[in-house]
Amino acid sequence: MTQAVDTPRTASRQATFTGLKCKECGETYQPEAKHVCEDVCFGPLEVAYDYDAIRRQVTRETIQAGPNSIWRYRAFLPVETDTPIDVGTGMTPLLSAQRLARRLGLKQLYIKNDAVNMPTLSFKDRVVSVALTRARELGFTTVSCASTGNLANSTAAIAAHAGLECCVFIPADLEAGKILGTLIYDPTVMAVQGNYDQVNRLCSEVANTKGWGFVNINLRPYYSEGSKTLGFEVAEQLGWQLPDHIVAPLASGSLFSKIHKGFQEFIKVGLVEDKPVRFSGAQAEGCSPISQAFKEGRDFITPVKPNTIAKSIAIGNPADGVYALDIARKTNGTIEDVTDAEIIEGIKLLAETEGIFTETAGGTTIAVLKKLAEAGKINPDETTVAYITGNGLKTQEAVKGYIGEPLTIEPKLNSFERAWERANTLNRLEWQQTLV
Amino acid sequence: MTQAVDTPRTASRQATFTGLKCKECGETYQPEAKHVCEDVCFGPLEVAYDYDAIRRQVTRETIQAGPNSIWRYRAFLPVETDTPIDVGTGMTPLLSAQRLARRLGLKQLYIKNDAVNMPTLSFKDRVVSVALTRARELGFTTVSCASTGNLANSTAAIAAHAGLECCVFIPADLEAGKILGTLIYDPTVMAVQGNYDQVNRLCSEVANTKGWGFVNINLRPYYSEGSKTLGFEVAEQLGWQLPDHIVAPLASGSLFSKIHKGFQEFIKVGLVEDKPVRFSGAQAEGCSPISQAFKEGRDFITPVKPNTIAKSIAIGNPADGVYALDIARKTNGTIEDVTDAEIIEGIKLLAETEGIFTETAGGTTIAVLKKLAEAGKINPDETTVAYITGNGLKTQEAVKGYIGEPLTIEPKLNSFERAWERANTLNRLEWQQTLV
Repeated sequence: MTQAVDTPRTASRQATFTGLKCKECGETYQPEAKHVCEDVCFGPLEVAYDYDAIRRQVTRETIQAGPNSIWRYRAFLPVETDTPIDVGTGMTPLLSAQRLARRLGLKQLYIKNDAVNMPTLSFKDRVVSVALTRARELGFTTVSCASTGNLANSTAAIAAHAGLECCVFIPADLEAGKILGTLIYDPTVMAVQGNYDQVNRLCSEVANTKGWGFVNINLRPYYSEGSKTLGFEVAEQLGWQLPDHIVAPLASGSLFSKIHKGFQEFIKVGLVEDKPVRFSGAQAEGCSPISQAFKEGRDFITPVKPNTIAKSIAIGNPADGVYALDIARKTNGTIEDVTDAEIIEGIKLLAETEGIFTETAGGTTIAVLKKLAEAGKINPDETTVAYITGNGLKTQEAVKGYIGEPLTIEPKLNSFERAWERANTLNRLEWQQTLV
Repeated sequence: MTQAVDTPRTASRQATFTGLKCKECGETYQPEAKHVCEDVCFGPLEVAYDYDAIRRQVTRETIQAGPNSIWRYRAFLPVETDTPIDVGTGMTPLLSAQRLARRLGLKQLYIKNDAVNMPTLSFKDRVVSVALTRARELGFTTVSCASTGNLANSTAAIAAHAGLECCVFIPADLEAGKILGTLIYDPTVMAVQGNYDQVNRLCSEVANTKGWGFVNINLRPYYSEGSKTLGFEVAEQLGWQLPDHIVAPLASGSLFSKIHKGFQEFIKVGLVEDKPVRFSGAQAEGCSPISQAFKEGRDFITPVKPNTIAKSIAIGNPADGVYALDIARKTNGTIEDVTDAEIIEGIKLLAETEGIFTETAGGTTIAVLKKLAEAGKINPDETTVAYITGNGLKTQEAVKGYIGEPLTIEPKLNSFERAWERANTLNRLEWQQTLV
């Protein structure tokens, strides 16, 4: 193992992970940069843990005494070092969303707000912090990813902080904020003329020819474990209890599966009591392969060609789609999709009621939450957590033209008074129209 | 006092603030919505505290056991309620900036990163959380502000969460991200054809005619106290010690003065040991009235007409400028200004070394930090904290055209290989040119 680049201390604690294990056939592998069960079935590899060792190391108190970041859950994460790359990622607010709840006829609604995650304002900072810490341990000096935008932002930023070389791959048609929000950290950016699924296939080939650590390809087993912290934090923030129902966006399906794994692990080591948690997933209609399979009762995914404003979740061939399907079904949850117009309304609804500006993926989640609430698929008394995974400042194009304009005035009191009168008259007219 | 809007519990703890006090003549006032010493000298009013009461209520342990937000310092904040508006504001990371430090020849450099403050990614969320909590206590149902952008974002967002009506005033020429990042919360937005100082004057008139709570006018004494938490957090995050030197941007000068007040209060109640802390301030050359006064040895500010890309700190007639001047002088600090080109370089430098994308105000701070380090005005061994106050996604215009472009490729391995080869050749050429 290589030592940490800018924090040259050796690992002192007993590692709690034992290696990699095929999710399909159970074959085990050394904890290297590998993501596919090459020897047997080509299933996806996952990190395996020694839960007895975790149980011996961890209590609620040791976690609470840990850092104010995902690294308070270090025993559950696949790294050996005691000095992981910690840029303050995680421990984002779990907000009691009383005004949104009232609008939707719910009573116990919470927003887990990763729109303000550190450093790059999406849940991807969690997975990248873990992946790059592991990449350093495995000796990589260049890191890479296939991204719909947020992952590129995060990989470039955290690589910059850690002093790692970085080359990211994105679809060429991404939102301006996501491209600029990557370039600013000075990585090499490859804008691929194709959709995410084509970017992803290209990256698999590149991973075979270059000795790079692709966070979501050869490092994927480590990377994806970072999403478990979205389960851990919610359980801790609810006072060491699980919620009754969660709603999260579905792109590859990995986030969804790992929140589930996080809850299960907390039960397994005795940090929370076991109870049923319903898992509901959100997709955009223009890229809804998992939702379609759910509705049609299929246990396989038929890939689609994405066409939606929700680009960050526009994965037509989702790697963990079948696992997400399985979890939604066995927990008595639902998978639903919404139109682009509903996504924009979802973004606005969350902003107007709770003061949270999310990107299109978050709009999708809120729109699905609304649809499920209206259809009676969320019990009003259920403690429900909606996961907001990214920030609206990165997808400004999506809402431009749908949020009105400022009233332009001169710097004079009477100019203000006239504008204020006009605004109130318009508001009254709109209000009367809603009554007609 | 009116009760909280959506959290109808009464205040249970002893209030630690006693009223308002004129900063100039010492005249005292009831803790109402008032900011000027109307009865005597027209000086600015400030909140006065009973520090014995605070000392009795607060220890390091009670603070650490408090919420993970600015409200852990509630005893030092001018509100009576036990249920303030808490949207997770504050407790942003204090990052050890080793790569940036090496570039600047410093050894103990930290970045206090309010670019990821919650909910709207600037330090303004601190002052607005306090101001709107106090506004509710004082019975206001509509809140307002004069803003260079960040304050409008924050006021609109937190008002939305709290269910308060909101009308904000901004200069009409603000960055697109700041306008959209306000409109999304559905307040009334008045875009004033003039600079910030004209907006501010208009708002003073409006405050006299409407019964609104203007966070930075009639509520200013409460509002500005929120900035003290940037002092408190740094002291706590350094292990209950003060730094040797801080560098912060200067707009009105209020932030700077309140960080100073925060340190002094922690000393006063015995939470940290007394020691000298140098205060250095950063301005943009295109709006540098405080820096000019500092350099010319004046103890008064001559207002200027702003002309800089650093719009969020472009205040030509800074309300607390003389206090900032005084603090910089008596602590043996400096006030310096930098050009727009240096500001852009500052933004890039912080992103490339530490993975933090800040707006123009943060670029100003980093550029001044660099200038001071190069001039030997920061001792390399001093524990230095640079305050980053806002997020770069809101001022994308400033860096567009200065950060390169992605390499566009086809989704094919050989297209990637050619682009990669080209990029490396270009890098080598650029490298050779730097050697010439």
